[in-house]
Amino acid sequence: MSNTETVATLGENLSLKRVIERLRKPTDASSNVLVGPGDDSAVLAAPDGRFCVTTDTMVEGHDFKLEWSSAFDLGWKAVATNAADVAAMGAVPTSLVIAMGVPSDTEVRWLEGFVDGANAACESLAPRCFVVGGDLAASDKIFIAVTAFGDLQGREPVLRTGAKVGDIVAVGGTLGRAACGLALLQSGNADAINTWDDWVNVQRRPEPAIELGVLAAQAGATSMLDISDGLAKDAARIAKASKVSIALSRQALQGYEAVLEGAASWIDADAFAWVLGGGEDHSLLATFAADATLPRGFKRIGEVIDVAAEAGSDVLLDGQPLAELGWDSIWG
Amino acid sequence: MSNTETVATLGENLSLKRVIERLRKPTDASSNVLVGPGDDSAVLAAPDGRFCVTTDTMVEGHDFKLEWSSAFDLGWKAVATNAADVAAMGAVPTSLVIAMGVPSDTEVRWLEGFVDGANAACESLAPRCFVVGGDLAASDKIFIAVTAFGDLQGREPVLRTGAKVGDIVAVGGTLGRAACGLALLQSGNADAINTWDDWVNVQRRPEPAIELGVLAAQAGATSMLDISDGLAKDAARIAKASKVSIALSRQALQGYEAVLEGAASWIDADAFAWVLGGGEDHSLLATFAADATLPRGFKRIGEVIDVAAEAGSDVLLDGQPLAELGWDSIWG
Repeated sequence: MSNTETVATLGENLSLKRVIERLRKPTDASSNVLVGPGDDSAVLAAPDGRFCVTTDTMVEGHDFKLEWSSAFDLGWKAVATNAADVAAMGAVPTSLVIAMGVPSDTEVRWLEGFVDGANAACESLAPRCFVVGGDLAASDKIFIAVTAFGDLQGREPVLRTGAKVGDIVAVGGTLGRAACGLALLQSGNADAINTWDDWVNVQRRPEPAIELGVLAAQAGATSMLDISDGLAKDAARIAKASKVSIALSRQALQGYEAVLEGAASWIDADAFAWVLGGGEDHSLLATFAADATLPRGFKRIGEVIDVAAEAGSDVLLDGQPLAELGWDSIWG
Repeated sequence: MSNTETVATLGENLSLKRVIERLRKPTDASSNVLVGPGDDSAVLAAPDGRFCVTTDTMVEGHDFKLEWSSAFDLGWKAVATNAADVAAMGAVPTSLVIAMGVPSDTEVRWLEGFVDGANAACESLAPRCFVVGGDLAASDKIFIAVTAFGDLQGREPVLRTGAKVGDIVAVGGTLGRAACGLALLQSGNADAINTWDDWVNVQRRPEPAIELGVLAAQAGATSMLDISDGLAKDAARIAKASKVSIALSRQALQGYEAVLEGAASWIDADAFAWVLGGGEDHSLLATFAADATLPRGFKRIGEVIDVAAEAGSDVLLDGQPLAELGWDSIWG
């Protein structure tokens, strides 16, 4: 086969077939995949009689740039971001379907790289999760729409509505690293990008701690979500849904800020803005009863309080509404 | 509210919220929707411990034109095409998620029209099916990626692989009408479009007979699929998957052709090419044991035979391979 085979030369159907053949497949009989790709629908097991479903989209030029992300990166990220939404319910990701549009001059090699990235992310982040179906369409720009499924294993889903006054607020995973990586890429400063490539790689291939979702549910998390738009915005979502306020401690957040200071000073940026406003680490934000034992991997960053009287104070930092502290921009 | 509110003025999150609020909601406790839109994931019941899943995409300029299809039409079609893929497994559509990209200057009214179309299609074609989640992204052109779910109600899924020599080949629903409608639109002939608006409307808002999927499964269908790329191509898919050939009878197909002759002669087209090559009616193609009683709504159009010796003869028409009869173009 020539390396310059494109979707146009193969056709959408044949290209999709090639993609499907490359997908990682279950090797044991205990998989949830009863009928895999190739028919009108896949058929999946839902052992406890329920399943979780979430969908998320990435669009070229809006959510990613081909100069900054390889096909492998995008396949990885598409899986990671959706698996995090499943984990945020306290569920185990079991499978996903991917609908994509690509220009007809897209090389089949690019598609293969995408599949390799998706396979690698499943294997690394959610080993029992498989791609079970897809659709490949012609489009002017690339878009990637992933729908992911999860198994609650008999547990109740952890919603955004259950935070109670007095609960601990905790984060599972890192904060601000992907935002730092994006700022580095946007700076165009090659030295900075090379020096801080760990943070750039978090932007390209986030590694959310998917297993922390189940651990949080088992530890009795009262509410949880995946931080996709930044700590400030996503904490406000829990606060609004649970009709409480969330009081964050700057001291508890300083460790997340500290590791980003070097990169921030290099490109004259504000590391704490990344910690509060950056979402693409896809860490989990959860609340736990005051007497709960936090699962290893979760760190206490604040507490749930009564709805604060001041306007715009779903989230407070050291007792002050975030907006009044000059963090308007991260509420965008 | 002004009529010129756009996704840009409201923002993606608020626009999506508006869309979600407009969605048709289950009114009885027997619905499969355990957790609806608004959290990281929805949670759906899978009463028999399994669920079907399928995904399909429509892209502006490639799969539809905004001059020819209203927002309502597109919402309807997105639901209808995916519900047909669920029906083709012998399952009942229970729910779907919709990931969309739209330009930021898209009017919120357009999104509302889309939701109204999706709601109407669910209500009309699959009354127990609800939209349970979505994602709204910014993109240069509109794309719509739907993932739909189905309940097998304890039955085995009807795959493409089960056709046996001697089986009846039957079609549930119409053939060629959507292709005729598309040809009328492409002709630009306003008189023809007005005269044959029934066929144009099949193109815009297909009405696949979703309930026929379950009836076919109950009648013991040995294989089934949704005709999305035309009878010729989709019959070949069953033939290949089942390692048989399919012999179609031209006489059995002439009724489907007859109703399209008027429109075909008006724009100097070949009605039989629409019958063989047109897919967007989303009818069901199924095989049944020779002694089966076909469900009302299915018509016998041929039979399953041993793999024919001639090359390219997965599908024969009156004993001749389709390709030799000059139908190459519909295999395109």
